Amino acid sequence: MNHPYAPHPPLSAALAEALSQRFGNRFSVSQAVRDQHGRDESVHPTAAPDAVVFVETTEEVAETMRLCRTNGVPVIPFGAGSSVEGHFLAIHGGVSIDLSGMNRVIAVHPEDLDATVQPGVTRKQLNAELHDTGLFFPIDPGADASLGGMAATRASGTNAVRYGTMRENVLGMTVVLADCRIIKTGGRAKKSSAGYDLTRLFIGSEGTLGIITELTVKLYPIPEAISSAVCAFPSVGDAVDAVIQTIQLGVPVARIELLDSLTISAVNRYSKTSLKEAPTLFFEFHGSPSSVEEQATLVQELAAGHGGMNFEWATRPEDRSRLWQARHDAYFACLQLRPGTRAFPTDVCVPISRLAECIRATNEDIARCSIPVALFGHVGDGNFHLVVLIDPANPLEVAEAEKINRAVVERALAMEGTCTGEHGVGIGKQKFLVAEHGEGAVNVMRALKQALDPENLLNPGKILP
Amino acid sequence: MNHPYAPHPPLSAALAEALSQRFGNRFSVSQAVRDQHGRDESVHPTAAPDAVVFVETTEEVAETMRLCRTNGVPVIPFGAGSSVEGHFLAIHGGVSIDLSGMNRVIAVHPEDLDATVQPGVTRKQLNAELHDTGLFFPIDPGADASLGGMAATRASGTNAVRYGTMRENVLGMTVVLADCRIIKTGGRAKKSSAGYDLTRLFIGSEGTLGIITELTVKLYPIPEAISSAVCAFPSVGDAVDAVIQTIQLGVPVARIELLDSLTISAVNRYSKTSLKEAPTLFFEFHGSPSSVEEQATLVQELAAGHGGMNFEWATRPEDRSRLWQARHDAYFACLQLRPGTRAFPTDVCVPISRLAECIRATNEDIARCSIPVALFGHVGDGNFHLVVLIDPANPLEVAEAEKINRAVVERALAMEGTCTGEHGVGIGKQKFLVAEHGEGAVNVMRALKQALDPENLLNPGKILP
Repeated sequence: MNHPYAPHPPLSAALAEALSQRFGNRFSVSQAVRDQHGRDESVHPTAAPDAVVFVETTEEVAETMRLCRTNGVPVIPFGAGSSVEGHFLAIHGGVSIDLSGMNRVIAVHPEDLDATVQPGVTRKQLNAELHDTGLFFPIDPGADASLGGMAATRASGTNAVRYGTMRENVLGMTVVLADCRIIKTGGRAKKSSAGYDLTRLFIGSEGTLGIITELTVKLYPIPEAISSAVCAFPSVGDAVDAVIQTIQLGVPVARIELLDSLTISAVNRYSKTSLKEAPTLFFEFHGSPSSVEEQATLVQELAAGHGGMNFEWATRPEDRSRLWQARHDAYFACLQLRPGTRAFPTDVCVPISRLAECIRATNEDIARCSIPVALFGHVGDGNFHLVVLIDPANPLEVAEAEKINRAVVERALAMEGTCTGEHGVGIGKQKFLVAEHGEGAVNVMRALKQALDPENLLNPGKILP
Repeated sequence: MNHPYAPHPPLSAALAEALSQRFGNRFSVSQAVRDQHGRDESVHPTAAPDAVVFVETTEEVAETMRLCRTNGVPVIPFGAGSSVEGHFLAIHGGVSIDLSGMNRVIAVHPEDLDATVQPGVTRKQLNAELHDTGLFFPIDPGADASLGGMAATRASGTNAVRYGTMRENVLGMTVVLADCRIIKTGGRAKKSSAGYDLTRLFIGSEGTLGIITELTVKLYPIPEAISSAVCAFPSVGDAVDAVIQTIQLGVPVARIELLDSLTISAVNRYSKTSLKEAPTLFFEFHGSPSSVEEQATLVQELAAGHGGMNFEWATRPEDRSRLWQARHDAYFACLQLRPGTRAFPTDVCVPISRLAECIRATNEDIARCSIPVALFGHVGDGNFHLVVLIDPANPLEVAEAEKINRAVVERALAMEGTCTGEHGVGIGKQKFLVAEHGEGAVNVMRALKQALDPENLLNPGKILP
């Protein structure tokens, strides 16, 4: 896979000098550091930035922006490096702003169920720091992503079916704009009708409209009772039908995840579990003890109605943690299915009424594929992933992965779905944006980009084709 | 209260002729029709549009936009006419586009828990049409507002504490832009990371960025069990403390509303109820029978701990409906407290930890006020309203209302709250926008307006100061 992008001039000596003077050893042009900031968790080819600045404050982000802007050089925000659609690859060169050092939990307000954090705080770190409060932050993409990155890609995860995505869980932000101004969006009120929703504008904008340097997120009381279970099904279709019925009945299930047989076998090997190698649902129920029991009984009945066998309960906290860690590691587990390969990941989301049909047809694509493809995902939301295991140096395999990607996305769009439920657009999904939104809506997105970043300095070449 | 706005030229004969030819008797310049479209539910002085077009399709909205744009004439979308911050007053003249005739429920997808509607469908109409599906739409501002208007003002209501506001409950929209293009935003997938969140950009934009001509909203299964109750408290502070504890414990209460003594006396008179004239909470619990009972028992204990007396249950559906209709009519009930006056309404929203303090200080303002002021609201969200009953012709009373409005807004902002939780900015809250968001964020809003409506034709003079 070669970049279709034009070469760009190297970093000017003047800018390198200015950044070096300002940031000392927190400014780096070493090849190793640059490479590390130009390679994501997917098969997108490496595109290293010209330099990396390790920032510590909002003002430092604004200063870096100012120096780069003066020199007409792009900036690319970098969080945990766990994105999968090439979001932070420096395809037009420029300076990577590494925000991972801005990892302080600034304030926790248990009484208001919110916390204000720096963007480099990861989801696991936040939950660790919340340990004694009785609260938790639910949004959990597979990787231990940074909260700034999660906001920038509108991430979600296994709890979204109950708690929503980053869209619903950020109250306000501090953002550095392309013109170096620092603004605040939103606030700490739970709702507001005071003007345009700038918070939601920056959420999902993938660093192309501004750089998030602080965010206030919603927290939730840890449920009094939590219960997890796994249940194997005769077929993926049966499992999905059980999910659809659960959602349509309004059962407030906290997590409802599908893993196909291949994914289960990968998980068993990677996480040393001994799950039956069959299409499987992972469930979690949150609530009071009686409400959890009620939900669990109902869902068990629904599952049985679709051939769901041997509901296995993980009641001890350590068993639950192990189960969900195994689920979160599914992506990495799949990578081991074919050692030496890389993952070509994709994700789509469809209205739940079309989910069974969408997965059924996708399984036919998978059956025709010559390389292994794992299917798993957040089926309670109608969202599922494919992980195609390819040798990126083999153009036939790349072409086959691209073909199945296109097939599943076009199918999802034909079903009124979206080309990405939670991974984001980055580079990889740009070609589907007009098909999904129409030329008019994409032009509005272009107008917004032009209004906020007329010189195209913020993560150029991402989202907008 | 006189308008500070410059006079504008009358509608040109050419535009009137073109609109008349196109729309026949659905185009009107009659004074009565114009006045009806230039007066809202508040004290903002009437500002009639120059003409009204009663549209029936998205294409007709685009055509009206095209004709007006060619003539440099503003357009103002009009729904149910129930807004309270002057949102649709034609302060710069122009043509009112009346969308109330676009009142068709286009599609209900019970299996996906969503419905696509035209913007003139009102919340009550939608729920009536959902009658046989077992589903409902929860967002309920006091008035029977149109869903297009509710999206445009980011409305909420009594159920928001459990189900969110319009922000969380619109999946996608059709929008006519200032340049007459028709775009689609969002879709029917429950979540998406595919590009900028245009849906959320138009929600709350009050007709200043585009005209919503279709929207897809989330629906919810009608809970198996519903239980409502009222409970009187020794003081507003005690009631609010009970609310705060309920929210902080994560009880999934569906509604939790405060009405002060004055509001209760107004409600008793207007709705022929016989509630004790004391600060009162209205509750509603949704869920399975056992979960509702569990929630109710817990909240009753919490209320008792704060002096909450005689929890009275409305168990029959007709009693519940009567109770909540009385709550929804509180605004109109207050208007009757002082016949011949008009209401000067305001609303603010603060983090729940500051709610008791905010209401306590506001009650001191009210005590010093020479005119009646009712206080009630959606306290589970930290959101409450004041209704100041004034004679708009009396400048002293207007000044007194403006003073208390300013005091409560400044107090809310000092507590990290917002100048409006659900009414919107319109004309009335513009003066607080910079104080709330900062000059930088308001400038970003201006840049967005400039990008999407460079000729300032869409509802000019609203939101942005």
